[in-house]
Amino acid sequence: MPLSRRDWLKRGALAPAMLIPGVAQAYDVDEVERRLAKSSSVEGVSKLDLPTPSLILDLDAFEANVAGMAAHAKQHGLQLRPHSKTHKTPEIARRQLKAGAHGICAATIREAETMHAAGMAEILITGEQVGVNKIGRLIRLTKAAPETMSTVDNAEHAEQLSEAARAAKVTLNVMVDIDPVGRRTGIAPGKKAVALAKRIDQLEGLRLRGVHGYSGASSHVKGYEARKAHSIQYMTPVIESFEAMKKAGLPAEIMSGASTGTYNIDSDLAGMTELQVGSYVFMDVEYRRAGGRSGDTYTDFSPSLTVLATVMSKNYDDIATIDAGLKAFATDRSFGPEPLIEGVTYSFNGDEHGRLHLENASREVKLGDKVELIVPHCDPNVNLYDRMYACRGDQVREIWKIAARGHV
Amino acid sequence: MPLSRRDWLKRGALAPAMLIPGVAQAYDVDEVERRLAKSSSVEGVSKLDLPTPSLILDLDAFEANVAGMAAHAKQHGLQLRPHSKTHKTPEIARRQLKAGAHGICAATIREAETMHAAGMAEILITGEQVGVNKIGRLIRLTKAAPETMSTVDNAEHAEQLSEAARAAKVTLNVMVDIDPVGRRTGIAPGKKAVALAKRIDQLEGLRLRGVHGYSGASSHVKGYEARKAHSIQYMTPVIESFEAMKKAGLPAEIMSGASTGTYNIDSDLAGMTELQVGSYVFMDVEYRRAGGRSGDTYTDFSPSLTVLATVMSKNYDDIATIDAGLKAFATDRSFGPEPLIEGVTYSFNGDEHGRLHLENASREVKLGDKVELIVPHCDPNVNLYDRMYACRGDQVREIWKIAARGHV
Repeated sequence: MPLSRRDWLKRGALAPAMLIPGVAQAYDVDEVERRLAKSSSVEGVSKLDLPTPSLILDLDAFEANVAGMAAHAKQHGLQLRPHSKTHKTPEIARRQLKAGAHGICAATIREAETMHAAGMAEILITGEQVGVNKIGRLIRLTKAAPETMSTVDNAEHAEQLSEAARAAKVTLNVMVDIDPVGRRTGIAPGKKAVALAKRIDQLEGLRLRGVHGYSGASSHVKGYEARKAHSIQYMTPVIESFEAMKKAGLPAEIMSGASTGTYNIDSDLAGMTELQVGSYVFMDVEYRRAGGRSGDTYTDFSPSLTVLATVMSKNYDDIATIDAGLKAFATDRSFGPEPLIEGVTYSFNGDEHGRLHLENASREVKLGDKVELIVPHCDPNVNLYDRMYACRGDQVREIWKIAARGHV
Repeated sequence: MPLSRRDWLKRGALAPAMLIPGVAQAYDVDEVERRLAKSSSVEGVSKLDLPTPSLILDLDAFEANVAGMAAHAKQHGLQLRPHSKTHKTPEIARRQLKAGAHGICAATIREAETMHAAGMAEILITGEQVGVNKIGRLIRLTKAAPETMSTVDNAEHAEQLSEAARAAKVTLNVMVDIDPVGRRTGIAPGKKAVALAKRIDQLEGLRLRGVHGYSGASSHVKGYEARKAHSIQYMTPVIESFEAMKKAGLPAEIMSGASTGTYNIDSDLAGMTELQVGSYVFMDVEYRRAGGRSGDTYTDFSPSLTVLATVMSKNYDDIATIDAGLKAFATDRSFGPEPLIEGVTYSFNGDEHGRLHLENASREVKLGDKVELIVPHCDPNVNLYDRMYACRGDQVREIWKIAARGHV
């Protein structure tokens, strides 16, 4: 039986440093680290014991998000292939699959390799795998997991894949990447896309599977109605290209797309076969601000991911400095994280520092206090951390490794 | 004797996939990975063989930077304590010490622990260590490395450190953190700072060592003369406070400060005893734009750090999409990385994508091409990667682990 905090106090297992007045923690650092080292099931460690800055996952919110999206896909008769680029965490992919997803997406070959090493098999790599290194790894992965799919937006690339596949005696599963808008990757919808599908179908070593169409520009359009109009405008030609491929007798069977912003828009578009949503597991400030069907705040899913920080300097009434700055949060948006203290706002203040603005704070903020903040943009925020602490209320339950984070 | 590329070709060790026309690489992925796995001394692998996006260190530029700053400090009779927050890489700290540095700085307890585990001993932690977790780890580290120093900007914090130090029977070395400007951390210069120094000197378990004064706001002021005026204005009261401590008989001996932007300004300020510069080892777009003594571009040190990327989509004449986006670069500035192709600029285009603008490109950019880009802001950029590839020209020589990257 694990000891309670009171037991530890009684046993004198606490270093006197733990008894700093006003500090809520009970265990000393060595004991916390011993307990955290067990990882798969953490006993008796609370958020307040954790080092900061740390990434915290609220299990209640996370589980509701996973179940909610799975139910939506089922209700609409769509396959669900959640994007692992968001979380890069095998344990989360496992839980998404268990909840009903039939496969996962990966943005990079490294994510796909990591997820495969952790037991996942049905992986769509949504980025083009170009160059010797990536084509070589795609072939190696396909040998191990024959259902692996990746994308093509260019005939020259298709020919390179074909040449490599023939030489290695494997069949590469290929999706035509169609660009709804924005010229990031993807071939233009319409005749060009259908011509590329035909070319792929002719090439030895390649198996055409369908269309990948991701309208990233739609996902964060503010307001549900405006977002709906945007997604319909740009996804319609993509889906029409997919239908034209089928009409031409090509073996296109999968029409994959959508985001957390458009999941309940694109699921009504005839022709879609699967949703490749990602951010819904965590949510973030950006998606909350995008607005939802019910109002200015998007509330279909709940924020489950926060950064836990410590107030490290408190020499003024109107501000506090916390130990979480540019290296602790995604910084790619015009806004920062949202502190979970009513009336308090945050601004970046250097690599390792952030400022809390306290003029309208609903409670006092003191030196040493712990503060949680909703992440601004979940994908790049997760990518900064090696692990997340999965918590039920204030108790740490498990530590999940963000195994696919970072680069090689 | 290692085989040459030609030998490998002759031996048929190449998978046919390697023979894609126009692709310069020679080894197949498995062979590259075998060679890279040796890590300490890589044989025959070129930049073109590497997975992308990857972090590349140009050894020639890096070595000149390390030697240049060491010579400057020596010439001015100052101690050099380079900041490891920039690189988080034990091998780089080792080389800085070998070149003449007498210790290192760390921003976080984790950086300090990592550097100590790698053999470093004289570490100044420039951030306040507040709360049970960090105070506990500071005490543990000080037991192992008694010269460890950290900062204090508040009497309450000093008392917590004293209580913990007495309980653990160690002496904590303490620097008064004085705020030159900006209210990030630090106590105001003048009477308040001297009073805090006196309080620290009275507290059992604490040993006052000197003053930490970092004027982050000065470091990137554009133009050498403007930067000089800014740094003199804000550092003078800090150094006067240090002198006042000495005059009051307090055992303050170290006056630590300066940045890569002000190293040749602050080194002329009477009273400074050490430089805690960081970014000079790598440089970045931000520092280059700050301007130097000789003109609009800061050229005292050379850019040594780039990200290597691959052109993954090329369907238009005016743009190319590379596989390096928001997760591959620091995004905290208003500008992105600078491609090392004359006339080409970059813009972010999503988590895993970046856009090259080719209207004024000095050469053709093709599908599969490798491109190097100077990082926008070196510290948070390094923090995204697990390793850097140290290269001499195009050849990879060593792989250095960025052991202190990320968070717990």
